[in-house]
Amino acid sequence: MLDKVLNARSVAIIGASKSKTKRGYQAIKTLKADGFEGEIYPVNPKEDMILGIPCYKEVTDIEGPVDLALITTPARTIPGILRKCGEKKVAGAVIIAGGFRELGDKGKELEDAVIQAARETNVRLIGPNTSGMINLKSNMNLVGIENPPRGNIALLCQSGNMALTLITEATIRKHEGFTYYVGVGNEADIKFHEYLAFFRNDPDTKAILMYVEGMSQGREFLQEAYKTSIEKPIILLKSGRSATGKRSAGSHTGSLAGMSQVAKAAYERAGIIVIENSDELFPVAETLSSQPPVKNNNIAILADGGGHATIAADLLSDYGVNMPELSEKTKEKLGSILPEAASLVNPVDVAGGTDSDPSLFADCAKILMKDPNVGGLLVVGLFGGYGIRFEKSLAIGEEAAAHRFGAMIRKRHKPIFVHSLYASHPSHALDLLRHYDIPVHDSLDISCKAVASLCRYGRYLKSYHGITNFELNWRAKAKREGIRIIENAGKEGRTALLEHEAKQLIQMHGAPTSVGGVAASAEQAWKMVCQIKGKVVLKIASPDILHKSDAGGVLLNIETKADVKKGFQQIMKNARAFNPDADIRGVLVAPMARPGLEVIIGTKIDEQFGPVIMYGLGGIMVEIMKDVTFWVLPVSSASCKKILEDTRSSVLLDGVRGQKGYDKKSMRKLISICSELVEAYPEIEEMDLNPVMLYEEGLDVVDARIILKKNPEQVVKKL
Amino acid sequence: MLDKVLNARSVAIIGASKSKTKRGYQAIKTLKADGFEGEIYPVNPKEDMILGIPCYKEVTDIEGPVDLALITTPARTIPGILRKCGEKKVAGAVIIAGGFRELGDKGKELEDAVIQAARETNVRLIGPNTSGMINLKSNMNLVGIENPPRGNIALLCQSGNMALTLITEATIRKHEGFTYYVGVGNEADIKFHEYLAFFRNDPDTKAILMYVEGMSQGREFLQEAYKTSIEKPIILLKSGRSATGKRSAGSHTGSLAGMSQVAKAAYERAGIIVIENSDELFPVAETLSSQPPVKNNNIAILADGGGHATIAADLLSDYGVNMPELSEKTKEKLGSILPEAASLVNPVDVAGGTDSDPSLFADCAKILMKDPNVGGLLVVGLFGGYGIRFEKSLAIGEEAAAHRFGAMIRKRHKPIFVHSLYASHPSHALDLLRHYDIPVHDSLDISCKAVASLCRYGRYLKSYHGITNFELNWRAKAKREGIRIIENAGKEGRTALLEHEAKQLIQMHGAPTSVGGVAASAEQAWKMVCQIKGKVVLKIASPDILHKSDAGGVLLNIETKADVKKGFQQIMKNARAFNPDADIRGVLVAPMARPGLEVIIGTKIDEQFGPVIMYGLGGIMVEIMKDVTFWVLPVSSASCKKILEDTRSSVLLDGVRGQKGYDKKSMRKLISICSELVEAYPEIEEMDLNPVMLYEEGLDVVDARIILKKNPEQVVKKL
Repeated sequence: MLDKVLNARSVAIIGASKSKTKRGYQAIKTLKADGFEGEIYPVNPKEDMILGIPCYKEVTDIEGPVDLALITTPARTIPGILRKCGEKKVAGAVIIAGGFRELGDKGKELEDAVIQAARETNVRLIGPNTSGMINLKSNMNLVGIENPPRGNIALLCQSGNMALTLITEATIRKHEGFTYYVGVGNEADIKFHEYLAFFRNDPDTKAILMYVEGMSQGREFLQEAYKTSIEKPIILLKSGRSATGKRSAGSHTGSLAGMSQVAKAAYERAGIIVIENSDELFPVAETLSSQPPVKNNNIAILADGGGHATIAADLLSDYGVNMPELSEKTKEKLGSILPEAASLVNPVDVAGGTDSDPSLFADCAKILMKDPNVGGLLVVGLFGGYGIRFEKSLAIGEEAAAHRFGAMIRKRHKPIFVHSLYASHPSHALDLLRHYDIPVHDSLDISCKAVASLCRYGRYLKSYHGITNFELNWRAKAKREGIRIIENAGKEGRTALLEHEAKQLIQMHGAPTSVGGVAASAEQAWKMVCQIKGKVVLKIASPDILHKSDAGGVLLNIETKADVKKGFQQIMKNARAFNPDADIRGVLVAPMARPGLEVIIGTKIDEQFGPVIMYGLGGIMVEIMKDVTFWVLPVSSASCKKILEDTRSSVLLDGVRGQKGYDKKSMRKLISICSELVEAYPEIEEMDLNPVMLYEEGLDVVDARIILKKNPEQVVKKL
Repeated sequence: MLDKVLNARSVAIIGASKSKTKRGYQAIKTLKADGFEGEIYPVNPKEDMILGIPCYKEVTDIEGPVDLALITTPARTIPGILRKCGEKKVAGAVIIAGGFRELGDKGKELEDAVIQAARETNVRLIGPNTSGMINLKSNMNLVGIENPPRGNIALLCQSGNMALTLITEATIRKHEGFTYYVGVGNEADIKFHEYLAFFRNDPDTKAILMYVEGMSQGREFLQEAYKTSIEKPIILLKSGRSATGKRSAGSHTGSLAGMSQVAKAAYERAGIIVIENSDELFPVAETLSSQPPVKNNNIAILADGGGHATIAADLLSDYGVNMPELSEKTKEKLGSILPEAASLVNPVDVAGGTDSDPSLFADCAKILMKDPNVGGLLVVGLFGGYGIRFEKSLAIGEEAAAHRFGAMIRKRHKPIFVHSLYASHPSHALDLLRHYDIPVHDSLDISCKAVASLCRYGRYLKSYHGITNFELNWRAKAKREGIRIIENAGKEGRTALLEHEAKQLIQMHGAPTSVGGVAASAEQAWKMVCQIKGKVVLKIASPDILHKSDAGGVLLNIETKADVKKGFQQIMKNARAFNPDADIRGVLVAPMARPGLEVIIGTKIDEQFGPVIMYGLGGIMVEIMKDVTFWVLPVSSASCKKILEDTRSSVLLDGVRGQKGYDKKSMRKLISICSELVEAYPEIEEMDLNPVMLYEEGLDVVDARIILKKNPEQVVKKL
């Protein structure tokens, strides 16, 4: 439990100092200035008193209990200090110093020593290499950012600069603030998912805002995120998407194509609102922390002029939000209070109707909010600025409208958003809106993103949640015969199955495929062809030749005895020329597959999230259109449906231009089988079914490739 | 010439008023308050004096010359007033009133009357339905927005609200402002392109900022834009992209698929910087109006912490900007002044090096700006806030750095951009940056968009410009035989060519296609098949059956005499059953095309821009992947190259997976031919070559469809 750490009632400052530029001075000053509601114990062997508080030589000299230690001393001193903290039974420590894993091997050694000390002494660690943490509920500010605004958002950040950015933004906006800030630093001990679980259980936290560059235990995080996001929204920015971004984030993994796609898909599957633009991070969190979600994805726009409404409609369309037709009754009622020139369709344009009395905005809003088609309202234009731009007395009408907006939200449980050109001007009407938790922005884009995020969270909460599960049931569905195939490869020192072995394995679990057989001679090959009846494909069977085509090891459309004989010999010859030392098992003879829609399924072990699956259009198009989707395994059958729908090419499966479409049921089943296989045989590192021929009825796995882990047990344990 | 209108030395206010809420009062008040450097003449038959200025009964009563009339009276009064203005030889009039075309047919009638009056009287019109215009150079403020900031951007807007938004933003940012603002309103007389030409010739205007919902003379605009954009940048937001957006923009055109794609492609071809997010509009214009373009698309990032650098690198990557490796010399020099923990690769992280002296930023900048790989510098983080956040005295070092940044830009002709968390705080260092025209933003996204726009403009200026031309040379390359085919169709009252006619026409201009022949009997068909040698396709030939497959009018892979006979009869029977009244000319016999890469070429007449061409991947994929590109015709051979490169599938043409690729030269030639055809025969409304089979060598237009205009001469005249 992190309660004693994040809600500490007493803090020791180890490295306390009288020098004003030192962190060990600033921390004590901030704790005093902010009125920390607990005990402060400066620790420094050379001082007696700092800022009027008696100083201790060692943490063990402190009489009372110490919940948390803020350690501001250099990296090399940390292991020793932690042992002292353990002696004192300190629950947790915030380690500010850098100079660990982020510096490479030598730093990693020191970090491992720190982790070791923490484990032995039972002290939980925040950091190292962090700007610290703040509990705004008890005024425990261990960061030194002045006057962070209080509120109901928990902030979990992997960059001190980004935390400073977000806290500064909140301060300027003067509306919403934070319950906690934690800089996770190097995540040496306490991980993202543990903080997340803590914030889920914190009753004062209504939304969790995260900035992530990379995380070490992705799967545990997804599991906690999934549990959390149905209770309160998580808003996350993942940076380091681009090659240069990764270089900057100091990622040491090679650039993995689709890496960011995997992460984005994984986070979204766990219900997280993923943000791609840092400007949106705080406004979206602010909105989600205080407004009811939009239940039906339907928004009405209310405008006092054309331009803003047009731009807002374009943006909301881009973000997947509907702007529904208004009911006849709504239009009629609007018509009765607005001028003739007004637009009564959505977007509604008051056409000067509010010029002499802006409280008319509330009359329109009341009508719109009552329309069952309307799930929320976006007001765009000058609201809040009538008293500034036109005539001071008009402010009264705006204020009246603002009060009524507040009441409407409560009555209808639908959100209202206000875009106002005057958002950064002093306006009492806009302050009233903020009081009622109505997001006010002078950016149309940010307003629309806020709307879109409440729509997205609404859609997520309405979607099916019964079976999302990130836990892997290793080995449960393994078959004895399957294990034998894999063990056999292991015994031979191979890290790849031969094609027919891979096909046997997937067939055993129900995948439709023609395994074929390996012929040791041309005669044997011909016998097999006779049994198959029809054209065949001949492929070299060798554990040492993975890319068969490159070795001239594949012949298609073979039918006659002469061709089989000639083909067998040609392939053997090519293979020997390609790699004279290759262990050649013979030639695989398999039926030619009928042409169909080529799709691809692949699985791999993602560094952050473990086993993931990729599905998409195959053939030459896959490389060009990149129409693929990634999902974290295991997948439920409901997920399999979503996987198919998640590609642009899904319309092909339904049938276009009067075609009949393809067998989606078989396709879903095949994805399920792949998920089962990866769980059943933890030895599988990568699986590639490419192409899979999909037909109007049924499918055929034409080629299968399975790569095994070099050290399966270790990998399983880690996951 | 618009000079007398937009640089008027005397203004008559027709509809001048003593009532403070009236436009006719406010306009005079603003002109006086802003110190208009010309004559002000109130006109109102009922008043003697308004705001201390003598009032005239009629505009014709004014003794001195009147350049411009601001007319604030209602719509119906306008034609009469314009005739009076004509009598007085007024050069131009700003018509504020709405109630014209935007209200439908009746309003259009009135607008036509206004246009008629303007033509007869030689008065040029701004509006109607506009918020007005401002000349900030002479303080001629005819809008009533208070204190618009002066600067070097011309603002051309189709929404008064958006103008107010942009002027307010400029006011808050306190850096760049405007030379002119014009609200084009209904564009009844003066069109977008005329304003554009005026601003191109205005020496004080350095950039042109436009908000467009739709324009009436798109092609003239493109031609002027093309001329302008190589001299000064044009920044444009086109709204009304989405269906709802269009509804809101009051567009009466049906929703045309790809409509926004056409406009975007057309604008970009003319060198316009197209913006999709209204938040970026002003910052990008501000940047482009004052900073040198980035010559090599290469940017270095300089940061004082990880998070901001990582996010900026991700964003710049997304926007197509390179972050080059730094030269060894640069790294060495940076290493000599930065702490050991600093990152010396791009993005450069000072790792605390600036904590005690932020003037080190300028030392780093100097080294980076000297690197020939670096085309511009983006500083991200806390610069400008060291004096605020850490220690007041640090502000001195920041100010010194700011001065040096300014000098570097002048010396190197490379831009510097500063993202600062403290952009909205009072900071003298940041004010100095603004003084040196360095864009300062607290939004990483806006900063990166500003960088990207200077890179994009730099790329545009470096690209080839010799032959871009939006003028159509109607009929010049028409062939007598081609005209005959089209005239013949016209004589028969047809608005579509038969397939073999269309093929004859394109073949005549050099397109490789097998025309085939129309057989009136099965015997004649068989004779044709014998000449073709090989499989053929049979298709019904009837001007009344456009969609031949739907009528059972297509048979593929016909070879034997029996099949030809049977097929002929079957097709004729199907066609008669499908449409008993159809004028059936026989059956088209053409060779079966070899399979190849299916591509599609289409041309149509765009409502705003006239003839445009579409090129892209054909077959089933075209509908799913929508991998097509639109270009305004005519196209040069350089454009044809770009057209091919403009699709995702262009890599297919180069050959993937060891394939040989396709004949790009023939493809480019075919696009050229289509361009020539549309110019040669203005009767062509739509042309569809689909599919075109593209081969390793050569291509084959398998099907061709040409639709003719119902009233060609009128259309040509309009364009």
